Amino acid sequence: MSVIITGTGSYVPSNITANDQFEDHRFFSEDGEELSDNTTTIIRKFKAITGISERRYLKPQQVTSDVAAVAAERAISDAGIDPEELDYIVVAHNYGDVTHGHQQSDTVPSLASRVKHLLKIKNPRCVAYDILFGCPGWVEASIQCHAFMKAKMAKKCLVIGAEALSRVVDVHDRDSMIYSDGAGAAILEDIQEKSDHQGVLHHLSATYALEEAHFIYFGPSYNQEETSARNYIKMYGRKIYEFAITKVPQAMKQCMEEAGEDINDLKKVFIHQANEKMDEAIIKRFYKLYDMSAPEGVMPLTINTLGNSSVATVPTLYDLVRRGELKGHEVATGDLIMFASVGAGMNVNAILYRI
Amino acid sequence: MSVIITGTGSYVPSNITANDQFEDHRFFSEDGEELSDNTTTIIRKFKAITGISERRYLKPQQVTSDVAAVAAERAISDAGIDPEELDYIVVAHNYGDVTHGHQQSDTVPSLASRVKHLLKIKNPRCVAYDILFGCPGWVEASIQCHAFMKAKMAKKCLVIGAEALSRVVDVHDRDSMIYSDGAGAAILEDIQEKSDHQGVLHHLSATYALEEAHFIYFGPSYNQEETSARNYIKMYGRKIYEFAITKVPQAMKQCMEEAGEDINDLKKVFIHQANEKMDEAIIKRFYKLYDMSAPEGVMPLTINTLGNSSVATVPTLYDLVRRGELKGHEVATGDLIMFASVGAGMNVNAILYRI
Repeated sequence: MSVIITGTGSYVPSNITANDQFEDHRFFSEDGEELSDNTTTIIRKFKAITGISERRYLKPQQVTSDVAAVAAERAISDAGIDPEELDYIVVAHNYGDVTHGHQQSDTVPSLASRVKHLLKIKNPRCVAYDILFGCPGWVEASIQCHAFMKAKMAKKCLVIGAEALSRVVDVHDRDSMIYSDGAGAAILEDIQEKSDHQGVLHHLSATYALEEAHFIYFGPSYNQEETSARNYIKMYGRKIYEFAITKVPQAMKQCMEEAGEDINDLKKVFIHQANEKMDEAIIKRFYKLYDMSAPEGVMPLTINTLGNSSVATVPTLYDLVRRGELKGHEVATGDLIMFASVGAGMNVNAILYRI
Repeated sequence: MSVIITGTGSYVPSNITANDQFEDHRFFSEDGEELSDNTTTIIRKFKAITGISERRYLKPQQVTSDVAAVAAERAISDAGIDPEELDYIVVAHNYGDVTHGHQQSDTVPSLASRVKHLLKIKNPRCVAYDILFGCPGWVEASIQCHAFMKAKMAKKCLVIGAEALSRVVDVHDRDSMIYSDGAGAAILEDIQEKSDHQGVLHHLSATYALEEAHFIYFGPSYNQEETSARNYIKMYGRKIYEFAITKVPQAMKQCMEEAGEDINDLKKVFIHQANEKMDEAIIKRFYKLYDMSAPEGVMPLTINTLGNSSVATVPTLYDLVRRGELKGHEVATGDLIMFASVGAGMNVNAILYRI
């Protein structure tokens, strides 16, 4: 049995918000103190750390499930399958559909049901569900579909990561500049005739919830003048950084070792686009575990122009590279690659995959 | 391989709200017309159809993940396992944690991460995630854990269904009287030495999202004087009824047939507590597919006093019967039973199980 990604698709919103569009924001610290730097300096420092110069937001009339369906259609078309043959539609997200200008998350029906509805799929045995697993949701949903295939419960699965973080940001929090919107999707198929050395070779997942459960959380605005009870996406950036640069390299190495694969054969790492400096530190530490330097070009990045769209970053990144739309990066049949992610939970996961 | 439920637990809130506590509500129709009957009549008719005389609500200081953790602790204790041995914690819910008096759903981190945190489980390889699948979420999460065991990815799983529908009800909608709060949990274990004829024998899942996707949805208050943008749980009761009494019996029969089991051996059906009349019609139609009448006592009910707590009803019902806490109902080793559910998606599922 080989579980192969036979198609990918993504939706990158056309609405670009550049860093200078935050110039007139008032930024506060977690303690409610207005930041003493002027916004130009805050934005310059932000860019130096995160690498982000612009991000993408959905149009006001769109919600997460809409763009999930667009990415899904593209993946289905790319795989050339009949959508009625799908056994599962899994949507990874974190905040459901949040309508522009509103604060409630809409999760009933599930976003997967909405996608199935939008794709006009009739077959009732195509089971549609959502998974909440923080940013690593798309990677985890792929691991689940792999399990369904191993258990002989599925042959073809549609796995989507979609998020509109623009709908849950506190405009008074510097971190608001990190977040972005988007959707990525893949078709996973159990292809019997492929060799066992192709497709998903191994995977690993972990949840750290003892000290780490609330590193990413839903909290009030940093601007204490805002008296509404509304909560926004919040994070303890420093703690997450320390956590990620320790746990993610360990998980990646463990995944390689358990698979019995050689680090020298690893061609690309498709890592969650959280923050450029953090991702670079993860890769550096990962190779350091092998007493090596990270090879040039091993880690494609979209964070600079696409920001952090949570569950959408990994499938979008892979889709762009597969299509040759990310300059300087390409993949070919036979390449050994890794998907890796880290996020709210705190969750960490990795998939080792041969194209 | 046999996947056995080795422990169960539930949390039934102590806060009882009887039907007469709705006497001073003003009820409106979907069109915004105030209902012409007085509330005493409305409540009497409501009780005649749904069978509900009272329901349970969480205490103001509680949220869904809190009671999920209580049910989980009870299931762990009942199974007598070390929680550090768990491979998965899966929480099925639909609305996340909604704090009393607030309208936002909090789903980051996932409720499963919160439960893991509350249970103080250290082992990072215990993976915690949430599934959104409407009311059939607990049954579906159990099916997923069964798959993980078949795929040799797990040996022990904690599966929880928890919901606080009281936090998302429109007090001007008659249907608000249906909804309730609660949590139920089970430990599923892959026990190699058990016979193949014990534990989960077969399962079946379906998603109908063509016409049916929005039968249960999030919408504004029926009282058009309420001008807030707040949405509430809403449903097209008649459409759901027609759907459920057709699709659920079919799915149950198909599950029996695919498993090769005899209808005469079926001892109990643990069905989602949606509405007494609907559940009775489902059972009647199910047996009618075999030209039989439903045997006396085949369907334990908690709807009358516990209402519809969504994903929590099936595991709570099974827990109560297992413990001998539901008068007139008991189960014993060797009994053939079925879990079945229907809800938002629209999703339908069933598990055939031998105790």
